[in-house]
Amino acid sequence: MKEFTHLDEKGKARMVDVTEKEATLREATARGAVIMSPEVFQRIMAGGIEKGDVLGVARVAGIMGAKQTAELIPMCHPLNITSVEITFNPIEGKHTIEIEARVKLQGKTGVEMEALVAVTTAALTIYDMCKAVDRTMVISDIHLVEKKGGKSGHFLRSKSSPRKSTELHRSGKV
Amino acid sequence: MKEFTHLDEKGKARMVDVTEKEATLREATARGAVIMSPEVFQRIMAGGIEKGDVLGVARVAGIMGAKQTAELIPMCHPLNITSVEITFNPIEGKHTIEIEARVKLQGKTGVEMEALVAVTTAALTIYDMCKAVDRTMVISDIHLVEKKGGKSGHFLRSKSSPRKSTELHRSGKV
Amino acid sequence: MKEFTHLDEKGKARMVDVTEKEATLREATARGAVIMSPEVFQRIMAGGIEKGDVLGVARVAGIMGAKQTAELIPMCHPLNITSVEITFNPIEGKHTIEIEARVKLQGKTGVEMEALVAVTTAALTIYDMCKAVDRTMVISDIHLVEKKGGKSGHFLRSKSSPRKSTELHRSGKV
Amino acid sequence: MKEFTHLDEKGKARMVDVTEKEATLREATARGAVIMSPEVFQRIMAGGIEKGDVLGVARVAGIMGAKQTAELIPMCHPLNITSVEITFNPIEGKHTIEIEARVKLQGKTGVEMEALVAVTTAALTIYDMCKAVDRTMVISDIHLVEKKGGKSGHFLRSKSSPRKSTELHRSGKV
Amino acid sequence: MKEFTHLDEKGKARMVDVTEKEATLREATARGAVIMSPEVFQRIMAGGIEKGDVLGVARVAGIMGAKQTAELIPMCHPLNITSVEITFNPIEGKHTIEIEARVKLQGKTGVEMEALVAVTTAALTIYDMCKAVDRTMVISDIHLVEKKGGKSGHFLRSKSSPRKSTELHRSGKV
Amino acid sequence: MKEFTHLDEKGKARMVDVTEKEATLREATARGAVIMSPEVFQRIMAGGIEKGDVLGVARVAGIMGAKQTAELIPMCHPLNITSVEITFNPIEGKHTIEIEARVKLQGKTGVEMEALVAVTTAALTIYDMCKAVDRTMVISDIHLVEKKGGKSGHFLRSKSSPRKSTELHRSGKV
Repeated sequence: MKEFTHLDEKGKARMVDVTEKEATLREATARGAVIMSPEVFQRIMAGGIEKGDVLGVARVAGIMGAKQTAELIPMCHPLNITSVEITFNPIEGKHTIEIEARVKLQGKTGVEMEALVAVTTAALTIYDMCKAVDRTMVISDIHLVEKKGGKSGHFLRSKSSPRKSTELHRSGKV
Repeated sequence: MKEFTHLDEKGKARMVDVTEKEATLREATARGAVIMSPEVFQRIMAGGIEKGDVLGVARVAGIMGAKQTAELIPMCHPLNITSVEITFNPIEGKHTIEIEARVKLQGKTGVEMEALVAVTTAALTIYDMCKAVDRTMVISDIHLVEKKGGKSGHFLRSKSSPRKSTELHRSGKV
Repeated sequence: MKEFTHLDEKGKARMVDVTEKEATLREATARGAVIMSPEVFQRIMAGGIEKGDVLGVARVAGIMGAKQTAELIPMCHPLNITSVEITFNPIEGKHTIEIEARVKLQGKTGVEMEALVAVTTAALTIYDMCKAVDRTMVISDIHLVEKKGGKSGHFLRSKSSPRKSTELHRSGKV
Repeated sequence: MKEFTHLDEKGKARMVDVTEKEATLREATARGAVIMSPEVFQRIMAGGIEKGDVLGVARVAGIMGAKQTAELIPMCHPLNITSVEITFNPIEGKHTIEIEARVKLQGKTGVEMEALVAVTTAALTIYDMCKAVDRTMVISDIHLVEKKGGKSGHFLRSKSSPRKSTELHRSGKV
Repeated sequence: MKEFTHLDEKGKARMVDVTEKEATLREATARGAVIMSPEVFQRIMAGGIEKGDVLGVARVAGIMGAKQTAELIPMCHPLNITSVEITFNPIEGKHTIEIEARVKLQGKTGVEMEALVAVTTAALTIYDMCKAVDRTMVISDIHLVEKKGGKSGHFLRSKSSPRKSTELHRSGKV
Repeated sequence: MKEFTHLDEKGKARMVDVTEKEATLREATARGAVIMSPEVFQRIMAGGIEKGDVLGVARVAGIMGAKQTAELIPMCHPLNITSVEITFNPIEGKHTIEIEARVKLQGKTGVEMEALVAVTTAALTIYDMCKAVDRTMVISDIHLVEKKGGKSGHFLRSKSSPRKSTELHRSGKV
């Protein structure tokens, strides 16, 4: 049975000991979505400068957020990540912006949390930039897509549709 | 028409000028969920010490995360928040832990982002503490529930069910 | 004779005691410049997306930098700044980008340092974004332009030309 | 033609991928200057304790600033720098304090930004410590002097005089 | 009976709600000591420059540490402290350096923790600066001396001798 | 004679140059104590939930504090620590909670400061959580217990009793 590695045998929290682990190439990809009103979606996407700035600021926030992972998440190891890329994928029919973050490291432990924090920070920044227009936006379906490197090997999430979820906005109930 | 207050007339990002706004009592409540495998849910909830530590660490992370909001979200004003409370609401049938954060401030601008960051950081911490056992957990439905104080007045989200969403885990497709 | 307020009577460093000072509206404007090769200047300004991103990222960095002032500058008081705006003024003939930051606060002490840190961080970010193309860029003439509020009153720098300086790049000697 | 490595092919910001780069010895030296009124210069240099404290605090700030580089400059990689040294070179005739920072690393990417941030933070700290006496100080001519290690090889700035610049203070116009 | 205010009625951690408390003048003084070998004590105190730098760096660290209190101590409120002063009191016969920090605030909650963190950070910095010569130094007797302001009123520690403690170093047993 | 490595030949502070040092396995153990009133000790230890939370929060704080060492202690190198464990050892007869932290790293310099900061931060957090009930608690006897790895070799403190110290609380004088 797999163990909760951040808990010791008595159930106390600890930073997992990775001292003896080998430094290998690690890579993680995470994804999430911000579901918004059609109006906000139009305005973000409406060509021009506004689009640049909402998503541009969110991209910077996501990259900087990845670097703050160990200060935010108590048991995360401080890591010198070597690459962060953030991609926005607007889904018009669902007035949703999907966010993907890919993080790399040559190191002793994986970068899943860094990728998840990058996605989350970018999503929260979109919320912040647009909240004066729409407070009912929902950040949803934040999940790990893929993970490479390390002893636990390759993880690739199967193709179920995380976006089907969070009907909240589209349901018209809000 | 409402404006994107964090963008100036040319669409450039800025920290909204709240200098002249009155300092009033502000309060915001946000909510989100971590959907996990039945196994992880059982182990977190299985009385005893483990439960204490996964949720205990997540609670501390959420409170500390709220204090890091202005360092994470580029256009957020630095604020001296005066109260943060995090509540966990386990939903057994859905092997989901719902997280609620309530933040207060006597100040010139609202604390929505602080509440959302608190929820998100707690959720990410649960993910981190349990990811060695289940990498398919999903963080979902992060949304603002209520907001009081300030010129924009009282916001209360209607009772649609944000939890209906994110079928990802329960669908058995993952 | 004016005193070095951050030194006590024995010359030891201290955070100046502003406890008893009145909270008033404070505002500070600072300016600085990045002087670069004509090639880099053209590419930053060449319409399109690149321009957006180099200056867009620098703007976000400047705003976030202002919020980190008290962590960078040892004797600075932590402050809840209420507004930051960054403006870029490209000077074609001098292939120079001038940066201006304006910061506001309702508080007990001035925000000169916040404005200067905002300018400096934006300038360093431009350097970082472009250094693969030109390592000889110079950041120059960082100075306080204007300061309002507080007991020391209104400060407005006279119109000498700070830009005349830093001939380094234009001299062709580098 | 050299590329803006922090922008992808579409001009979007990213943290450059240095995962595959070799870890080699890196070293960077940067320089800058604070130009002040003769009075402030005399008082900083006037033997005794004050001198110790203004420059002593600025030295600590510069060293700590180098460690905050990745939190300030959005696309900078987090690095475990292994050496920082700050030297102050007072130039009496020009009532200017020149600042030099040298930073080292065994790693995958250069430390130019760390050296530039160290210089800038030390300069801003001198400004902060003395601003109650002179608000017209100018921080100027911040530039990379030398860079060793890495694929781009040795960079050494030619001996033009960056200090000639910034006549602002000496011109008597301020 | 007094309550643990950072725990709610179920014993869960929270940031105490101080929203409704009045903003008053707060002040706290804390003290602690670093006990070292006679050799290290002599060298720190041996007039000249070294003394300046060990204690000078420790003073800056203590002041900056006070500003990081809310990032270090999970339930502490972020506060805009308005004054920090650090005093070193060398006690020759005991080759001990006593550290005192005094912190002020106009605010809704006390600054005891800020004063204690300032003392501790200064003490740890002395340890760090001298540890290559003596690893057996002991940091001891960190305690609150006085606290003014707020509903709980004036606290003044009685004059027992905290320094009598920590015989560790003087006992010659180490 | 051993040197103060954080001071250069002129007595100026610097971050010691460890660039050329070999990366080896490093480990450090530090210890400290919080001495409190019998009442507070009883309530912390009184089985149940409270105990969990005071010490649980202090453990998280200690682990996160270790990661903030290079931001707190000016001359400390930023390090990617690979393990942190915090143990609490309650000593009933002395109503004292002893704290031990063990930190590991594969790197170029030791982790003594990280272990000492972890102990101190945990101790300060216990103080903070309980100060509403007892302001006379004393944090004491923070010292390095053991250090392995690196050129300076194995350091193991002899078994004198650091706890004998700090009679402050037990003396009944406070």
